[in-house]
Amino acid sequence: MNTPTSAYDRVAASFERQGMMRLLGAELRRVEPGRVEIWLPYSEILTQQQAGFHGGAIGTVADVAGGYAGLTLAPEGMEVVTVEYKINFLSNFTDGTLRVVGKVVKSGKRLIVTTAEVDHIGADGKESACALMQQTLVPVQQTY
Amino acid sequence: MNTPTSAYDRVAASFERQGMMRLLGAELRRVEPGRVEIWLPYSEILTQQQAGFHGGAIGTVADVAGGYAGLTLAPEGMEVVTVEYKINFLSNFTDGTLRVVGKVVKSGKRLIVTTAEVDHIGADGKESACALMQQTLVPVQQTY
Amino acid sequence: MNTPTSAYDRVAASFERQGMMRLLGAELRRVEPGRVEIWLPYSEILTQQQAGFHGGAIGTVADVAGGYAGLTLAPEGMEVVTVEYKINFLSNFTDGTLRVVGKVVKSGKRLIVTTAEVDHIGADGKESACALMQQTLVPVQQTY
Amino acid sequence: MNTPTSAYDRVAASFERQGMMRLLGAELRRVEPGRVEIWLPYSEILTQQQAGFHGGAIGTVADVAGGYAGLTLAPEGMEVVTVEYKINFLSNFTDGTLRVVGKVVKSGKRLIVTTAEVDHIGADGKESACALMQQTLVPVQQTY
Repeated sequence: MNTPTSAYDRVAASFERQGMMRLLGAELRRVEPGRVEIWLPYSEILTQQQAGFHGGAIGTVADVAGGYAGLTLAPEGMEVVTVEYKINFLSNFTDGTLRVVGKVVKSGKRLIVTTAEVDHIGADGKESACALMQQTLVPVQQTY
Repeated sequence: MNTPTSAYDRVAASFERQGMMRLLGAELRRVEPGRVEIWLPYSEILTQQQAGFHGGAIGTVADVAGGYAGLTLAPEGMEVVTVEYKINFLSNFTDGTLRVVGKVVKSGKRLIVTTAEVDHIGADGKESACALMQQTLVPVQQTY
Repeated sequence: MNTPTSAYDRVAASFERQGMMRLLGAELRRVEPGRVEIWLPYSEILTQQQAGFHGGAIGTVADVAGGYAGLTLAPEGMEVVTVEYKINFLSNFTDGTLRVVGKVVKSGKRLIVTTAEVDHIGADGKESACALMQQTLVPVQQTY
Repeated sequence: MNTPTSAYDRVAASFERQGMMRLLGAELRRVEPGRVEIWLPYSEILTQQQAGFHGGAIGTVADVAGGYAGLTLAPEGMEVVTVEYKINFLSNFTDGTLRVVGKVVKSGKRLIVTTAEVDHIGADGKESACALMQQTLVPVQQTY
């Protein structure tokens, strides 16, 4: 008997296949239809030349959060690939954790558009805007 | 006696400060005024769920190549930070090496605009387009 | 005696200087600190080859709404210019009115980041998402 | 007997259907496979508040030049629609003509990626970079 996969299980199964997510130390925290939350704790391996979070690490997790938000709304048997994204960096931080929330703006049969908001959470719990991404995905047949 | 830093030395000094470049295994290959070339060999740590190069790894190296192309034209004592970038993914690959070439399109006092072309080089030497990035930088005072 | 200009008056004075806003028939509807709303009624002059709203017309009004949202937060004597924007088109329409709402995401001394949401309002009042923009502005000295 | 449409005729037929191109006074100048050139002469109707070319007018023509470059490579019976574009403004001008050259970077069955370079040509023939666009298109069935 087949049990339909929950949104969380579906995203987690794909997340674990990404060598890059392990490499960065990213954590899948919450999955709802059309919304995925990933956390990225600060680490020296993630830095740019000023010891802040590297824009590439921020962009990577934003790309993934948006992509998995899209995946939650794609039909079973399909996955999504990123066509393109655009990200603005708002402030940089040298500690704490980034909370990255991907959300679907429009889910079509041929194209999915998402955003990801990246906020910094300091040791004292203070939240500050860090980055904002806008992304285009296409659904494709899952082949593995 | 002060010797003016060569464009290569200046970029290399900053490149080595980036934990993220070591993490990904990126190699600084060539630096000319307004042009920087970085190579990224395939590795399992860099993968997405289909075992291809992760878009985040590609985006990271494109961001860095564009940024350092900008740095070569910034006055001594200044460095650059990324305001935003936008990247299109053209084809994906599960082996070989990515050659990422950042180029300055316009270098102004307040803003620098660059592009980065990412090409895949296969084991047989065949070259294929992989990604295209467009980026905005600002020059800032170097503080370290 | 000088009276400080209201946010609305400030934006309206600049809006009226734009030949392009008159040309398109765009209407400045509401101005609050960090938020500007412009309406664009459908017209045959605004069409692309399928008789829908032209992406360029949509992009123009989104650019302007984001820009003026930024202007409401810029110091007196400054205005803003667009560094770049990115826009996704979500659905097209061949009638009705577009409501374009620009909002400031982050207002810094050197850079301002905004978004604009474009929604279609049909003759029956039905609202649908039309486009989404993300934009970077710089404040500059006003010279006229 | 059917004669296959030339690339120029195909683009020109669609160009003439765009109310927006007439409105702006844009001129289709050259069409080759994968490359389309449009000129936009300065006019007071095209201005922003500083009397320069409006970013929206520049973005519109860049969008169209990239789109038609894509159309030249799409199969007969198909046309293209813009998924999204991103444009950087490099310098502004209050006279002369803009030469907008759209080029296909990658033409796939599901997605087409293009760029458009916008250069200013002064009364004295001097050329200067004005803007740079990167764009994603999808081919769709032509319905008219």
